[in-house]
Amino acid sequence: MKLVSFERNGYESWGVVVDDGIVDLGVREGGSVLQLLREGLDTDRLAAMVSGIPADLPLDSVTLLPPVVRGEKIICIGVNYANRNAEYKDNTPDPEWPSMFMRGFESFTGSDRNLWRPPESSQLDYEGEVVMIIGKEGHRIPQERAMEYVAGYTLMNEGTIRDWVRHAKFNVTQGKNFPCSGSIGPWMVTADAVADHDNLALETKVNGEVRQSDTTANLMFPFDYLISYLSIFYTLRPGDIISTGTPNGAGARFDPPRYLAPGDVIEVSCPAIGTLSNGVEDDPTAGDDMTRQLRDNCQR
Amino acid sequence: MKLVSFERNGYESWGVVVDDGIVDLGVREGGSVLQLLREGLDTDRLAAMVSGIPADLPLDSVTLLPPVVRGEKIICIGVNYANRNAEYKDNTPDPEWPSMFMRGFESFTGSDRNLWRPPESSQLDYEGEVVMIIGKEGHRIPQERAMEYVAGYTLMNEGTIRDWVRHAKFNVTQGKNFPCSGSIGPWMVTADAVADHDNLALETKVNGEVRQSDTTANLMFPFDYLISYLSIFYTLRPGDIISTGTPNGAGARFDPPRYLAPGDVIEVSCPAIGTLSNGVEDDPTAGDDMTRQLRDNCQR
Repeated sequence: MKLVSFERNGYESWGVVVDDGIVDLGVREGGSVLQLLREGLDTDRLAAMVSGIPADLPLDSVTLLPPVVRGEKIICIGVNYANRNAEYKDNTPDPEWPSMFMRGFESFTGSDRNLWRPPESSQLDYEGEVVMIIGKEGHRIPQERAMEYVAGYTLMNEGTIRDWVRHAKFNVTQGKNFPCSGSIGPWMVTADAVADHDNLALETKVNGEVRQSDTTANLMFPFDYLISYLSIFYTLRPGDIISTGTPNGAGARFDPPRYLAPGDVIEVSCPAIGTLSNGVEDDPTAGDDMTRQLRDNCQR
Repeated sequence: MKLVSFERNGYESWGVVVDDGIVDLGVREGGSVLQLLREGLDTDRLAAMVSGIPADLPLDSVTLLPPVVRGEKIICIGVNYANRNAEYKDNTPDPEWPSMFMRGFESFTGSDRNLWRPPESSQLDYEGEVVMIIGKEGHRIPQERAMEYVAGYTLMNEGTIRDWVRHAKFNVTQGKNFPCSGSIGPWMVTADAVADHDNLALETKVNGEVRQSDTTANLMFPFDYLISYLSIFYTLRPGDIISTGTPNGAGARFDPPRYLAPGDVIEVSCPAIGTLSNGVEDDPTAGDDMTRQLRDNCQR
């Protein structure tokens, strides 16, 4: 089953994707995907609710949002595909533990909307990833029980302002948090509908050209490991997002680098989930580059 | 004026600190410090509300919480005091831009409660810091208007699980997010009561011994710079927390390192704000070290 969150004519709603569109459960039941997860996802009950009901809305009549809107945490895993560490060419051994950082909800848009390139950088880059969405609260979860905590899956373009990930001495936070620099979607596929999460094909195309292609079978830290590991320090909660890392082939890894520009179209695809598609535009809400004043004023 | 959030007998409330205790505004008005900030802090109105009212509760009869409970973002600046970069001894030049990372609310407790040392590490460390609390929503804020966005100040012990900050290739997230590994408090002093935010003395003591001592006059990136810089990518919102970095002298910088152990008492003090005091105990909610199974199961 596929759950979507969306906007239409100024109202925000959610629903189930059926063959020819969306059954709008927001207008029927209220709530949200986040609330559904907090109450405990019951796919049988959901299936009964939409059974025999024709779609209310064609998919292309709505603005898709990330499938979970304003959950508590968005956790992104870095350097997780087996050959990605080598791609950094920094002669470090494969990591003993996962890399990770946090992103804010506002750094993401939904599918079929434009990513924003800020005036402060020309280095907007793509990173296609498979995402787990948490369905049950847990802390210190054993690895063998970890998958019980996954409500479903979606995709992320973990869009990055590449030069700004190097602003900080030890962290990538800045380059990972510009508004609408990434995307999540198009929908959440419930876990019962994904047969083999440890062997999901993942592909990223830019303007139709394949840039990234790998499978979750090559993850150094597989899904159940990540949940157990993260739960050592975090309490995972319904609606929390765990993005599981990107394969080789981000734009920064080409020589010369191949960054995104207005008009480009990026498609992140996983056959078991769907395709997350985004264009690119210059941030329509921003004015001039704001770093000039900060450079001038810096007292050091 | 000093605003506190607290728990007492199972209810959560907030109030104003007067000479001899707390005027409980939660029971009188409902709401929270976060809600007060979202509605726009009006210190004159608050002063009128508590004028002539004797304290309802002695301070030591309540459990202090971080002054803002469950705001949207907790942003921590790293390596900001002028001599701290040199302390890393990695021969890098002083940074051109601030370092930063995010912490979750649950990684903090309030003043006068114990920090938790997890079973996975013996390297719980202290970092005393001055904190700005945001009072007004803003995005792309010019530096010369930045201080209009600060509602008040508090203190942070940006407690860190030192070996876990090195788990990730490019980020410190894990070692900064263990439950109750840090603290915020004891209260928020409203901005109108802090005369010179660019010259606040800051001191950290462990069991009465001074370990860190500096002033915000030595920040490489002062408060107004930080707000402007962060607002380039984030939308800052009422209740957001910006912790401004720690001076030299964390336990990890001693040779041999001096980590915290159960029974230790850490006091972070700033005369203009107050003293944040915490003991240390082993995490009372945790069982055994969970990393053993993960090491054994790791497929690489």
